[in-house]
Amino acid sequence: MNANASHDSIRAVQWHGDRLHLLDQRRLPAEETWIDCTSSDDVTRAIRDLAVRGAPAIGIAAAWGVVLAAMHGENLSSAMATLRAARPTAVNLMWALDRMNGRVSEGAGAAELEREARAIQDEDLAANRHMGELGAALIEPGSHVLTHCNTGSLATAGYGTALGVIRAGVANGQIEQVYAGETRPWQQGARLTMWELVRDGIPARLIADSAASHLMKDGKIKWVIVGADRIAANGDTANKIGTYQLAIAARHHGVKFMVVAPSTTVDMATATGADIEIELRDATELLSVSGTRTVIEGADAWNPVFDVTPAELIDAIVTERGVILKPDEEQMRILFP
Amino acid sequence: MNANASHDSIRAVQWHGDRLHLLDQRRLPAEETWIDCTSSDDVTRAIRDLAVRGAPAIGIAAAWGVVLAAMHGENLSSAMATLRAARPTAVNLMWALDRMNGRVSEGAGAAELEREARAIQDEDLAANRHMGELGAALIEPGSHVLTHCNTGSLATAGYGTALGVIRAGVANGQIEQVYAGETRPWQQGARLTMWELVRDGIPARLIADSAASHLMKDGKIKWVIVGADRIAANGDTANKIGTYQLAIAARHHGVKFMVVAPSTTVDMATATGADIEIELRDATELLSVSGTRTVIEGADAWNPVFDVTPAELIDAIVTERGVILKPDEEQMRILFP
Repeated sequence: MNANASHDSIRAVQWHGDRLHLLDQRRLPAEETWIDCTSSDDVTRAIRDLAVRGAPAIGIAAAWGVVLAAMHGENLSSAMATLRAARPTAVNLMWALDRMNGRVSEGAGAAELEREARAIQDEDLAANRHMGELGAALIEPGSHVLTHCNTGSLATAGYGTALGVIRAGVANGQIEQVYAGETRPWQQGARLTMWELVRDGIPARLIADSAASHLMKDGKIKWVIVGADRIAANGDTANKIGTYQLAIAARHHGVKFMVVAPSTTVDMATATGADIEIELRDATELLSVSGTRTVIEGADAWNPVFDVTPAELIDAIVTERGVILKPDEEQMRILFP
Repeated sequence: MNANASHDSIRAVQWHGDRLHLLDQRRLPAEETWIDCTSSDDVTRAIRDLAVRGAPAIGIAAAWGVVLAAMHGENLSSAMATLRAARPTAVNLMWALDRMNGRVSEGAGAAELEREARAIQDEDLAANRHMGELGAALIEPGSHVLTHCNTGSLATAGYGTALGVIRAGVANGQIEQVYAGETRPWQQGARLTMWELVRDGIPARLIADSAASHLMKDGKIKWVIVGADRIAANGDTANKIGTYQLAIAARHHGVKFMVVAPSTTVDMATATGADIEIELRDATELLSVSGTRTVIEGADAWNPVFDVTPAELIDAIVTERGVILKPDEEQMRILFP
C-alpha cells in the first residue's frame, strides 16, 4: 500500500563519503534545500540553528560531525565539546558523542569513526522499525490517533519513533485516521509531520494544538502517540511543549497515551522529571511570525519549548528493548537495569 | 495607577450620528484602521469578515446596523435577517436584533432606534464594570491568572468581560501577573489581548496555547478567566476553541475556572452544551499564515473555532446579575428564572 511503498523515501541525514548533507527542516515544506556540511563546525551550526532537529537525528548528525573533525585533523575533544553544547535537552546528542568519544579514546582513526557513525545511524533505523511493530501491536483496529511535533523520518535516521508506530499501524490497518497538532511556535506538526504524512498517503488532518480536547470528546481518538527528548529513571518524559497538556486531556477522556523513543533517550542517571532542565527560548519566537512582528511592541512572552509528562499519565513507553506498560522506576529497571 | 488611567481609552464601536466607525481588528496590532459603515450592509460585512468580533461587540454593531437601515428607509425585516445570518454562534447578535425588532414592531422611528442602540451599548459597558467588580472579588491577592482569546474593550462596548475582571483585579491589587494564550488560529490573544494589556500597562506575558498546563504546574496560576459565546441552561459554556482544554488542565492542577459574560450570553432555551452548534471554519485558516501556505499542498485540516466546556469544570459564572458558583441548571435558574 501507499504507506508501505514510500516508508523509506526520506533520509534527512545523508553521509556522502567526505561531507554530510542535511535537509534544511526550517525551509520545509516550501523548499527542499540541503545543507552541505564539510566540517564539525558546519554540523554544530546546523544543530544549534535547528536546520536538523529531532533528538535521534541530532545525535546522528553529531556523530558525523566527529567523523568530519577526524578527517580534517581537528582537535577531537574540542570539536566534541562544541557539538555537545549545541542543544541542551536532547540526551541522544550526549549519548552519541559519548559513544564516539569511546572509540576516540581507543585510538580509532577516521575510517573507524566513520564505521561507528554509520552503525549509530543504521541502529537507529532498525530500532525505529522494531518500535513501530511493538507500538502498533498495542493499537486496536480502526483507531484514530493524535500525534504532536515531528517524530518521523525527519527527526531520526528514518521511519520515525512515534511516527514509525503510526506508519506501522496504518500499514497494518490498525490506524484509520491520524491527527497532527500544529505544535506552536515552530509548527513542526504543521510543516513537517503533515509533509511526511501527505507524502506517504496516510489519511491525516492538522488541528490547532488547542483543539485536541474537543477532538477527543467524541471518543474516536484511541491513542495519543508522541516521541521524547529525555526519559527519566521513573518514566517521567520530557518532550515538546504541549505534550503534558495532551497527556492530561487524554487521561480525562480515557484516551491512552504512548511515548515512543529509542533506548538512547532513556537517562537512568536522571531520577525524575523534576531534574530535567527545560529549555526556555527567546520570546521573539512567539512575538513574530516569519520575521514579521505580530504582537504589540513592548509585549513580553514566556516560551518554554519542552515540558515534562509525569509517568502516571503514560500508558506505555515503547523502546526497541521492549514495551513498558504503566511505567514507574521498578518497571523501567527491568529493561534498563 | 496605569491600569486605571487607561481603562476607558479604547472604544472599538463608535457611533457618529449618521455612521458607525469600527476599529478593524483584523489589522491590529500593526495598524489602527477604522471602517466607516454608512449602511446595514456595511455592518453585516464587517461582522461576517471578522473586522468586528467578540460576542457583545457583534450585538452592539448589529443594533447600530438597524439604525442605519432605518435612517436610509431600508426594509428593516430584511436588513435584520441579513445581519442575523452574519455569524451563527454568538447569541448576543440574536439578542440585540430581537431587542431592536421589538422597538421596530412598536413602530419606533430612526431616532427612537438610535436611543435603543445607544442603550444597548451603554448597558453593556455598565454590565462589564459591574462584572469586573464581582469577578475580581473572587480572586485572592497576589494571584497570577491566565486568559484566552480576547474579551476586552475590543470585544465589547468597552472595559471587557473576562478582561474586565482582570482590569478590576489588577487595579485592586488582587492580580499580579496576567498570562494570555495566543489563541490559534486567529491569534486574538497575541494580537488583541496583548495589545490591550500592554496599552494599559498591565504585567502580561504571552504563551503558546499548548504551554498552559506547564505554566499551571508551579502553582502560581490561581484562576483561568475566560468569556463566553453562549451559555446553556445548565451552565455548559461555548467559547473559543481551546477553552475546554484549559478547563481540563485547570481542574487537574486545582486551578479555578471563571466564565465572565453578560446575561445576554445566557440562552436558557438551549438545555445543554450538546445542543450548541459548533462553527467549523475553512481548513485554510490552519494551512496558511498571513496568506502564505505553510503546510504541504494536499494536506487537510479540522478547524472547529469554538468548543463547549461542561458546567462541572466551571467554578464560577459571573454575569451582571450576580455570580453563579458551581453552576448547574438549578443554580442557573436562580438568576435566570
